[in-house]
Amino acid sequence: MKAVYSEAHSSHDPQFFLVRGVVRKTTEQPARATRLLDGLNSGKHSIVAAQSFGAGPRARVHSPDYLAFLEQGFEEWRALGDSSSEMIPNIHAHRGEGASYPASIVGRLGWHTADTACPIGAGTFAAACAAADVATTAAQMVLDGEDAVYALCRPPGHHAYRDMAGGFCYLNNSAIAAAHLRQKHERVAILDVDVHHGNGTQGIFYDRADVLTVSLHADPARYYPFFVGYAHETGAGAGQGANLNIPLPLGTGDADYMLALDQAVRRIKAFAPGALVVALGLDASEHDPLQGLKITTEGFRRIGATIARIGLPTTLVQEGGYLTDILGANLAAVLAGYESSR
Amino acid sequence: MKAVYSEAHSSHDPQFFLVRGVVRKTTEQPARATRLLDGLNSGKHSIVAAQSFGAGPRARVHSPDYLAFLEQGFEEWRALGDSSSEMIPNIHAHRGEGASYPASIVGRLGWHTADTACPIGAGTFAAACAAADVATTAAQMVLDGEDAVYALCRPPGHHAYRDMAGGFCYLNNSAIAAAHLRQKHERVAILDVDVHHGNGTQGIFYDRADVLTVSLHADPARYYPFFVGYAHETGAGAGQGANLNIPLPLGTGDADYMLALDQAVRRIKAFAPGALVVALGLDASEHDPLQGLKITTEGFRRIGATIARIGLPTTLVQEGGYLTDILGANLAAVLAGYESSR
Repeated sequence: MKAVYSEAHSSHDPQFFLVRGVVRKTTEQPARATRLLDGLNSGKHSIVAAQSFGAGPRARVHSPDYLAFLEQGFEEWRALGDSSSEMIPNIHAHRGEGASYPASIVGRLGWHTADTACPIGAGTFAAACAAADVATTAAQMVLDGEDAVYALCRPPGHHAYRDMAGGFCYLNNSAIAAAHLRQKHERVAILDVDVHHGNGTQGIFYDRADVLTVSLHADPARYYPFFVGYAHETGAGAGQGANLNIPLPLGTGDADYMLALDQAVRRIKAFAPGALVVALGLDASEHDPLQGLKITTEGFRRIGATIARIGLPTTLVQEGGYLTDILGANLAAVLAGYESSR
Repeated sequence: MKAVYSEAHSSHDPQFFLVRGVVRKTTEQPARATRLLDGLNSGKHSIVAAQSFGAGPRARVHSPDYLAFLEQGFEEWRALGDSSSEMIPNIHAHRGEGASYPASIVGRLGWHTADTACPIGAGTFAAACAAADVATTAAQMVLDGEDAVYALCRPPGHHAYRDMAGGFCYLNNSAIAAAHLRQKHERVAILDVDVHHGNGTQGIFYDRADVLTVSLHADPARYYPFFVGYAHETGAGAGQGANLNIPLPLGTGDADYMLALDQAVRRIKAFAPGALVVALGLDASEHDPLQGLKITTEGFRRIGATIARIGLPTTLVQEGGYLTDILGANLAAVLAGYESSR
């Protein structure tokens, strides 16, 4: 399978991660890309350089004020004088209250972030744009006739909303790929197998009937993102019925996961999309530091095989999956499983 | 003027404050109470011990799930094992999305906080309850015939919503005093002169016609709490017209402040309340470290005098005002101004 990559991800090197009240270094590090490349090389997948698609693809799913903030906000932050080397919010516009858009960069930072897990440094926007180009290049290759293409996106994207960063994500690469595919296909489905609910992706397409969003993930009652990702969230307005969440108990292993995946596949087939985007988190691994689910490397192979049997042109977009020795092997397993069943 | 105090505030000694991306020690320190007591002593005000009113007063303005979280949450947090000595949220339930209440203590912490400026330690709930008792004792003394009573509340309260802590605040002492006064008076007004918008107080009474909320504060477009506190927020439903926000440009001094205060006073008089609560922040001082407004000590005296001329039974509840040499003098000035004009 062809894989798309850009070295430009490395300009995003986040440091701040607040977990259980303690500031730690984030687990979303540049070295993840090296591990994932190792996995691609072990599977003898050819690596293709990303093309530049300009501002168009990101503008399809993100708001102008958010994009302007991502591009220009850091200079304002730096100008505050006594600010840190990354933008970290200390307040957000919360639920249940009419909120206005403030002028202050501190306020706008809170407006455009969903949590404290999305530090924005001097090189973040460039890296996020490069990741969006990686995803768009992969989607374009599928439009041009490839059966399936893998996009090595970093930073990841599925927690990014139309106008909010969150959970290590800034631009929603999976949503950008889906919107690119929508230029040709009337209906597109997104299947999110990251251990976390794809809350940003759900939010972007929640009221749309043309993009089906399906997410399997650790139960948010006890896992990030906590407030959304529940089964009762089925879409709104024209999008009613075009969102499926399958929360899984913490510690779910291969067998029960595959049953849930079968349910997801049935829904995708019933939707009859022209193309599929897989939000390919690898953090459901039994060895992932986040310890949400317990998928084995063999389980990842089966996930890849099951996705292939859906029989759709497929863009696989890298989401989460953190630093373990097995990260590359699990990527290789998904792709090998896919190729074995296509 | 009689002043109510409780030493129990000292069990709340917060450490974590995230400002411009840097973790600092909070400015809301136990030593504030000492400075305020010095101010009371310099004015020869008599200090009265708070009485205990039990759970009733806080239950009038806060939700059962929030109170249970404040009382019991810290033990769950501690049981996580690798957690910090204070609960600090890393995610909140944000605007524009249906949100569900999670089981996880990390999720519930995010649900019940509006920002990262309300660390909850082992002694926080006890201190917050003591502050609510201080406010209720003062309100009861006014109900019993005192012309005006000052409540030395710490931690402060006006950023606390019905079910959320925020901005150094946990239980909304001013709202609790107003709800206590409502037992006798059909209408009660709250005048908030803290440098920050009284967002929690506004939220608690936003749809009620029986409590007028008026706040003078630094313009939220460039100042905490950023997202609310604008002039167009006038109340909702039955409460339409019973909320008045007067945002002031950063750096506003005594002269323009007094013009705005006159506008607030006219609205309060038109509302014809039976009693007044003053949310008495002293952080509008020209010397306050937060540098929002530029009120002089003489300005605080005039504020006290203007409030007295409203001619209502008055409960003055301490809100913000941080560590400066002039903190006690500014409190003494407000109270002296009040007494000189009554």
